[in-house]
Amino acid sequence: MAGPIIALTTDFGLGSTYVAQLKAVLMGSVPEANLVDISHSISPQSILEAELSLRATAHIFPAGSVHLVVVDPGVGTQRRPIAIESRGRFFVGPDNGVFGQLAREPNVRGVVLDKSHMFREPVSNTFHGRDIFAPVAAELAGGLTLDDVGTPIENWLEGSLVKPQRSGSQTLVPLLHADNFGNVLTNLHIRAFPANARIYLKDKQLSIFEVYGDAPRNTLVALFGSDGYLELAVRDGSAISVLEPDWSTTPLVVEHIS
Amino acid sequence: MAGPIIALTTDFGLGSTYVAQLKAVLMGSVPEANLVDISHSISPQSILEAELSLRATAHIFPAGSVHLVVVDPGVGTQRRPIAIESRGRFFVGPDNGVFGQLAREPNVRGVVLDKSHMFREPVSNTFHGRDIFAPVAAELAGGLTLDDVGTPIENWLEGSLVKPQRSGSQTLVPLLHADNFGNVLTNLHIRAFPANARIYLKDKQLSIFEVYGDAPRNTLVALFGSDGYLELAVRDGSAISVLEPDWSTTPLVVEHIS
Amino acid sequence: MAGPIIALTTDFGLGSTYVAQLKAVLMGSVPEANLVDISHSISPQSILEAELSLRATAHIFPAGSVHLVVVDPGVGTQRRPIAIESRGRFFVGPDNGVFGQLAREPNVRGVVLDKSHMFREPVSNTFHGRDIFAPVAAELAGGLTLDDVGTPIENWLEGSLVKPQRSGSQTLVPLLHADNFGNVLTNLHIRAFPANARIYLKDKQLSIFEVYGDAPRNTLVALFGSDGYLELAVRDGSAISVLEPDWSTTPLVVEHIS
Repeated sequence: MAGPIIALTTDFGLGSTYVAQLKAVLMGSVPEANLVDISHSISPQSILEAELSLRATAHIFPAGSVHLVVVDPGVGTQRRPIAIESRGRFFVGPDNGVFGQLAREPNVRGVVLDKSHMFREPVSNTFHGRDIFAPVAAELAGGLTLDDVGTPIENWLEGSLVKPQRSGSQTLVPLLHADNFGNVLTNLHIRAFPANARIYLKDKQLSIFEVYGDAPRNTLVALFGSDGYLELAVRDGSAISVLEPDWSTTPLVVEHIS
Repeated sequence: MAGPIIALTTDFGLGSTYVAQLKAVLMGSVPEANLVDISHSISPQSILEAELSLRATAHIFPAGSVHLVVVDPGVGTQRRPIAIESRGRFFVGPDNGVFGQLAREPNVRGVVLDKSHMFREPVSNTFHGRDIFAPVAAELAGGLTLDDVGTPIENWLEGSLVKPQRSGSQTLVPLLHADNFGNVLTNLHIRAFPANARIYLKDKQLSIFEVYGDAPRNTLVALFGSDGYLELAVRDGSAISVLEPDWSTTPLVVEHIS
Repeated sequence: MAGPIIALTTDFGLGSTYVAQLKAVLMGSVPEANLVDISHSISPQSILEAELSLRATAHIFPAGSVHLVVVDPGVGTQRRPIAIESRGRFFVGPDNGVFGQLAREPNVRGVVLDKSHMFREPVSNTFHGRDIFAPVAAELAGGLTLDDVGTPIENWLEGSLVKPQRSGSQTLVPLLHADNFGNVLTNLHIRAFPANARIYLKDKQLSIFEVYGDAPRNTLVALFGSDGYLELAVRDGSAISVLEPDWSTTPLVVEHIS
């Protein structure tokens, strides 16, 4: 029988010994766990990148899986350690916005981690990932419930991954982040995009393609990615390399045709 | 009992959520599988690097292992999804040259993946890795045969990893790629290199060493690597840093002495 | 039952096929082993970085775990292949300083690996990791003792991770390495630091904080990290970016107040 999945998302950097320390705590507590590295390449302290990573992975592992997220610039300060349960998956990490998008899911619940007997003592002021989050993630993977590991909270911090808001005939869609291929990601889902809408970047209309391979070369195009979100791409090239250096400050404009 | 090995080679970049999505599909289907990351650092869309990675790893895992290769610039176009069986190992991915070198192996067989009931629906136009290749790799790891997952094909695309050809007293050996140490790799195997042959780069003869540590410092030398292929190296340094910027356009010349 | 842990530390680079070859040897010999990647991002041939990685991870996995360390610029030369046992953990790799710090531990023992029937034949002159260290690591993970795999040795090479030495009222503390966050690491443990001592960098006193979040922004501060060692940091920033380019040549000065 395969053990429970614990999925790791951190900004520790590849080959960081911090990752090994997290794994040592997890494997010491739940030896049969199946540890999956989602990413340790989140840019240092980038809550936005952690949110994007969670957007794509929060619900792809089976119910019972635990996400351990350690992107934690406020470690050792007043920011709360929390755990969240949504659709049968658990999420453990800091209350700094990384879990903001989960708040919009139905029946989601959160707790503040205040059962200090579960923590690894002494708790380091600079590494709650190892001493608080990992031990609690291990307990949840081992079968404890959300109520076993904390006290219910009403809400937790919003992050940067807000839904684009429609205003009149327009929706402004911020350009959020460039992935490894130079594709630029947004948070506009295809479900919020009517078939006959048009997309503009600084007054220039962008063509929308279904497949990279159908697009002309050397041309910035729009495309809904495999996760359903709008992105900018250049076939066999990099969208980021043809955009202005200040690309992240200018949102796309979606014109809705009624 | 340890589960079957599924080895992953992609250009998704480290920490990409695409990798996590592949793993979720594989673990959902074959929870006992042993997932091994060969590389997610293939340069974006570099079929050559995927070929080099396969050259070194195709047959090192035991029979029954499955290689899932997702370097797929033509995703969503007419390029075929294929699976190949060679020497008891399975290979699943796009027909774009990544599996070219396998075609030269004895008793190798290939199929086009046309059993769409095995696919993850709906099949994304931009992520066949998740929706076609991973589900089929899981089926092969789970015990299905090549004929269970597709229809036989006669051949598949050659890649860039062609064998250097001898012409008269010379063999031209292209410089293919620089590894993490700055060593520059070729596709000339020591079996095709007579003991008394000489190696020239732009008319300068290179000394051939058996061991890095025997070479003089600061000197470009030739060496047959641990996989038996000729490479250029600088002891305690980097071959790439002493070569001309256009190094990849000038092949080595092997002079055969009869 | 979970299998034995084999933890890997190499300078092969992420996605290197050399890593896959190590894993193939280990999984072929001990299929139930739990392979943990500590790091494959050690800078090429950096014994110092390997030492720092081991400093943080040598004893975090349970007794019986095996560390396989392949940072081996002298491969194929006279440097000895060795294995060490300390506090129930095993360490396998080259005798080039990577295991220097273990020599100071109580009851530590070492052997030179001279049971060539355990090696993978033919032994490559350039890849002892695959052909000597991995097979021996697998044997130790599988239950063999240190004496089963080699012949006792009295000592092995010191590395660069020497303890800072006190001289009069001062201790000079070399700045060793910058981590992924730009924090600069030293080898001074908090146990060797009296509460009322002061820290200077080029005559400028640095404030000491317990928590990143308590430090003022844009200011270089000192801090004892989660592993107990002194490091330099900038809150929400990077210490390395505010230091002189030649930072590694100027040690910190700790002034002891009697």
